[in-house]
Amino acid sequence: MHDSSYEALVRADAFSDCERAAVYRAIETRRDVRDQFLPDPLPDALIRRLLSAAHAAPSVGFMQPWNFLLIRSREQREAIWHAFARANEEAVAMFTEERRQAYRSLKLEGIRKAPLNICITCDPDRAGPIVLGRTHNPRMDAYSTVCAIQNLWLAARAEGVGVGWVSIFHDQDVKEILGIPKRVEIIGYLCLGYVDQLYEKPELEIKGWRQRLSLDDLVFEERWPADAVSDGGG
Amino acid sequence: MHDSSYEALVRADAFSDCERAAVYRAIETRRDVRDQFLPDPLPDALIRRLLSAAHAAPSVGFMQPWNFLLIRSREQREAIWHAFARANEEAVAMFTEERRQAYRSLKLEGIRKAPLNICITCDPDRAGPIVLGRTHNPRMDAYSTVCAIQNLWLAARAEGVGVGWVSIFHDQDVKEILGIPKRVEIIGYLCLGYVDQLYEKPELEIKGWRQRLSLDDLVFEERWPADAVSDGGG
Repeated sequence: MHDSSYEALVRADAFSDCERAAVYRAIETRRDVRDQFLPDPLPDALIRRLLSAAHAAPSVGFMQPWNFLLIRSREQREAIWHAFARANEEAVAMFTEERRQAYRSLKLEGIRKAPLNICITCDPDRAGPIVLGRTHNPRMDAYSTVCAIQNLWLAARAEGVGVGWVSIFHDQDVKEILGIPKRVEIIGYLCLGYVDQLYEKPELEIKGWRQRLSLDDLVFEERWPADAVSDGGG
Repeated sequence: MHDSSYEALVRADAFSDCERAAVYRAIETRRDVRDQFLPDPLPDALIRRLLSAAHAAPSVGFMQPWNFLLIRSREQREAIWHAFARANEEAVAMFTEERRQAYRSLKLEGIRKAPLNICITCDPDRAGPIVLGRTHNPRMDAYSTVCAIQNLWLAARAEGVGVGWVSIFHDQDVKEILGIPKRVEIIGYLCLGYVDQLYEKPELEIKGWRQRLSLDDLVFEERWPADAVSDGGG
């Protein structure tokens, strides 16, 4: 068994400068897209590449807990949009009056505009009750599924496809529309479509909702400093 | 305000074939590294690029809830390793006798071998109690932090740096060692170091712990099928 393991080790060169730059370009220019979706359908082969990228994500105990529910029908997207709209009205009411107008001016989803929606779920029973690496952190299966989402998002950027993550709905509403079993957890609801323009910075930064924090304030050495404060962390 | 938003939209071309291939190469050849770390320290400029990649992740309401705690001292890594070792003994006992020997044979961390450890945390108070997009899903801040981890992981692959995610410890033990405040949540504990070889497939697959699922079984159209089963999903 050990022998075959060692044979399976292969050279792992760093990437060329050009390849490395491409990876950073995907990371730095990826955006959470709400309104720039073009209506053109995404080809099946492209969707397959995106799903393969998601499926290549790390998963705790190699449990691969994810499923990908592809939603293209107008009826289903319309039903999901109504679930969003109801929840978003509740969300508006949670903000202070001062923030409420700004909140209302933001477009927070592209459910009907994006030609493809993908609901990404986590099945906690995928590998039995005791999972290597989940023994002391029950959220590791959800975190694995988020890694799959981020893989898909970066691959989409490289393909010229925008992705927006919608989180404003009651899970139960979406689970009913999509027939998702009780035990299965919704992790992310994504809207996808081709884009030919993107914001050069995060949209919420451009629109003055919240500013970029300084990375220096977020990095600590060896121990959390005793005088660290919450806002910005340092 | 709308005008400045529109100005901030820039052309978003798809990547060249070569750039796109580089993004997929990072995604497909990224591994969860436990034992291939080389001892050479990582240059500060490289660490900065990795942290910048993490900081470029999407975050709910642009809250950027993460902190990055860099741990290089032998004493701190030794203390964390002991927290792992204690928890791992508890983990061993959870598996059936049949699996226990296989579990014991796996190396599940590189805490002392990797020259750099990074504890990545989520501060739920970073942007006040009501956060855009977190109103209906309280886990969105943790999920944003996982996106930061996956960004860092892929950037590291492009840099020739291996990353391993350790999840077998009691959070409270690690929080005490690192002085992390009660309100702040540990999301991931990563081990990093240069690598010159990697497994060509996930290590747990190579070592026979669990097999790769077929992507076809994990993809559904429009609705969750009534006859779907948990194992593999279809």
